[in-house]
Amino acid sequence: MSSHPPNYEHLDDQMIKLEVNLDNIPGEWLGYVMDLLFEAGANDVFYTPIYMKKNRPGILLQLLCSVEKVNIMKEILFKETTTLGVRYYPLTVHRLERVFQKVETEWGPVTVKEGLLDGKVVQRAPEYEDCKYLAQLHDIPLKKIYEQVWKEIDR
Amino acid sequence: MSSHPPNYEHLDDQMIKLEVNLDNIPGEWLGYVMDLLFEAGANDVFYTPIYMKKNRPGILLQLLCSVEKVNIMKEILFKETTTLGVRYYPLTVHRLERVFQKVETEWGPVTVKEGLLDGKVVQRAPEYEDCKYLAQLHDIPLKKIYEQVWKEIDR
Amino acid sequence: MSSHPPNYEHLDDQMIKLEVNLDNIPGEWLGYVMDLLFEAGANDVFYTPIYMKKNRPGILLQLLCSVEKVNIMKEILFKETTTLGVRYYPLTVHRLERVFQKVETEWGPVTVKEGLLDGKVVQRAPEYEDCKYLAQLHDIPLKKIYEQVWKEIDR
Amino acid sequence: MSSHPPNYEHLDDQMIKLEVNLDNIPGEWLGYVMDLLFEAGANDVFYTPIYMKKNRPGILLQLLCSVEKVNIMKEILFKETTTLGVRYYPLTVHRLERVFQKVETEWGPVTVKEGLLDGKVVQRAPEYEDCKYLAQLHDIPLKKIYEQVWKEIDR
Amino acid sequence: MSSHPPNYEHLDDQMIKLEVNLDNIPGEWLGYVMDLLFEAGANDVFYTPIYMKKNRPGILLQLLCSVEKVNIMKEILFKETTTLGVRYYPLTVHRLERVFQKVETEWGPVTVKEGLLDGKVVQRAPEYEDCKYLAQLHDIPLKKIYEQVWKEIDR
Amino acid sequence: MSSHPPNYEHLDDQMIKLEVNLDNIPGEWLGYVMDLLFEAGANDVFYTPIYMKKNRPGILLQLLCSVEKVNIMKEILFKETTTLGVRYYPLTVHRLERVFQKVETEWGPVTVKEGLLDGKVVQRAPEYEDCKYLAQLHDIPLKKIYEQVWKEIDR
Repeated sequence: MSSHPPNYEHLDDQMIKLEVNLDNIPGEWLGYVMDLLFEAGANDVFYTPIYMKKNRPGILLQLLCSVEKVNIMKEILFKETTTLGVRYYPLTVHRLERVFQKVETEWGPVTVKEGLLDGKVVQRAPEYEDCKYLAQLHDIPLKKIYEQVWKEIDR
Repeated sequence: MSSHPPNYEHLDDQMIKLEVNLDNIPGEWLGYVMDLLFEAGANDVFYTPIYMKKNRPGILLQLLCSVEKVNIMKEILFKETTTLGVRYYPLTVHRLERVFQKVETEWGPVTVKEGLLDGKVVQRAPEYEDCKYLAQLHDIPLKKIYEQVWKEIDR
Repeated sequence: MSSHPPNYEHLDDQMIKLEVNLDNIPGEWLGYVMDLLFEAGANDVFYTPIYMKKNRPGILLQLLCSVEKVNIMKEILFKETTTLGVRYYPLTVHRLERVFQKVETEWGPVTVKEGLLDGKVVQRAPEYEDCKYLAQLHDIPLKKIYEQVWKEIDR
Repeated sequence: MSSHPPNYEHLDDQMIKLEVNLDNIPGEWLGYVMDLLFEAGANDVFYTPIYMKKNRPGILLQLLCSVEKVNIMKEILFKETTTLGVRYYPLTVHRLERVFQKVETEWGPVTVKEGLLDGKVVQRAPEYEDCKYLAQLHDIPLKKIYEQVWKEIDR
Repeated sequence: MSSHPPNYEHLDDQMIKLEVNLDNIPGEWLGYVMDLLFEAGANDVFYTPIYMKKNRPGILLQLLCSVEKVNIMKEILFKETTTLGVRYYPLTVHRLERVFQKVETEWGPVTVKEGLLDGKVVQRAPEYEDCKYLAQLHDIPLKKIYEQVWKEIDR
Repeated sequence: MSSHPPNYEHLDDQMIKLEVNLDNIPGEWLGYVMDLLFEAGANDVFYTPIYMKKNRPGILLQLLCSVEKVNIMKEILFKETTTLGVRYYPLTVHRLERVFQKVETEWGPVTVKEGLLDGKVVQRAPEYEDCKYLAQLHDIPLKKIYEQVWKEIDR
């Protein structure tokens, strides 16, 4: 059973945000932890710089996951970071319908992810990995790929 | 019907915080979006720098609004930013009673907003727009206006 | 009656997060407020830089405390900061079991706090104040104390 | 005599960066100061959140200006902020050649600023103020304006 | 021989900024290092959150000191942090003339530091330590002390 | 001819810091640019969140490289970011002597990089990539690898 959200527009009220404050962990471990959390199924993971007691620069780790992922996330946080406590609270997510369009550029195809609100396209985002692949393959600036994708959409 | 909070001290349990993570939007659009959200009735809108996957500097957009404003806020977020999802959760706000006092400076009047806790003044803040107006009109440093307001309060 | 959390592993669902946005307070007051909040029993207090309206760099103050501390925290926030409103919401905290180990270094003893998940040690952190005390007493780098503690643990 | 940089590609070695650390100024004054510095001819002004002594969240104000503007910038900084010292050092700026192109969208014209390196276009940026004007005039999302500008460039 | 700057307005061209990027040090050590650097005579020390390679949240440590302090600062940085390199460059500081005024409040005296540009007062800052002392002694909000100092200055 | 710094302790006065302010580039491009700059020989590249005009959250890109790399860095910055100008200034770097030690853990060997000041070891850092490799190979927490390396050094 997958925990991936469906592609149609919906409200998801089975989401949890977990948070951890960290002031005694080196930054290089945090780069590693982010990858582990994504691999284990986190919907998003991000860090915020915070000011903690005793003049300590710290990091607030936040992650979003579905209810059934909370335990595995906690386990990773406890084993891979230096925290003694993990806090969390529920939230609701309104997700747009997602459809995928293929756009041809002179260097190759790029997928464009579209987001629909009430059936109307409000978002269009060229897939980063596609653009990056073409930029590296043809040794041209990444932004030229994006520029051409914008030009070709809906033509 | 206005969604403005009343001026007496109260607990408001009809407030919602909305959040969006953004890693594919230029900063100049975000300056614009903030204005739109305020104009549509957000109580507050603010950005936090965050560290996202793949070495991306991102922005966490947070906004506070009353329950009945959630739909219009979502619509703006979906139409004006690049997000495919908006998350939110309820919270309670304890607001002080607010009263307004007029203070005379040598350059003109300034309104001072006071906040009362259990009927006692605990906050006093000169209105920024008043002070700015006088500073520009008389071509003097903004802080001199504030300094004189502090001197004249309650005299 | 103490509000300190117990030392065994547990879920605490009596915790509250309070938040305040501040754009009209000097930084030097915020250093002072943090101390007051800790002294009054906050479990944690931390600041995040935020971007507020009208190009204002602001601070998001967040604090964690148990339900019964909410009123005293609010009072401090209203009296010592410049806010007219405090917002808050409940959350759950999963806390590890905590045990303390004494480790001998060549400069003196250091307490190591251990965190246990399901009875197994997953965290070990030398107490900062112990290490700092020895570093200052013997005039050696703080990190040398930590390095030796790591060497001596479990030997 | 204007201090504006010319439009052709060049190295400018008459630039100065000024810096000020601020821990006792409210954020709302800083929004005001930024405007004043730009009006007085600063090439750029920006703020960075910093951690200062005694647990103070502070702001590092940085500004770039030409040598002949240093005195007026210092004067504004001393009069409008709370600093007792301003530090500065010279730097070199490599600026691209700039040309302006007009692009027609269905809602009206938008200027696109191009940057040229060795005579070849490497940058293209739709002018924000033009796009904002059209977005407000026609009540459509700002990003739709940008999207169409990208589509029409060089057609 | 003291390295303290004199109290009259002057340009100091014997100042150095040192910088270190840190991605493998816990935040709690950084709180300690800041104190050591100030004790050894740094004019200022501050931290900035930075985004480093491999998704690492890092810290940029910056410090200002006079030329003759560079070696002792380097030594502390190498011994107390985890860096393998320290970078630095000279800068000029324009410092205001400083004079001290005594202001009487109902709770006791507070020193106000004034900054003079061309002999005219442009800065006035109540000394934080004085205000903090009175706030704690009389158990009143810190901001009430400041408010009264502003009221009494120049009366 | 390599531009890598030598392994003995030395002062390097052929270093340049380049800086760019960015307010119209999506974060996902910045993750890509950082990699390109490192591949082209930058000694370090890092981002700082900044507050720019018109309420724009922006990014300050900073990079360090040797004098002979300045042109290639500029070219990448102009082609891959959205800037119209790059600023730079020289600085000096004091680098420690570097030696490498092999440490055996129960999961395999880890290289430890040591930094020497005046011939004495002041830094010891387990190589992140070695630790990460072992953590993934044996499916154990990264921090356990580090902990054992600390235990085995110099035994």
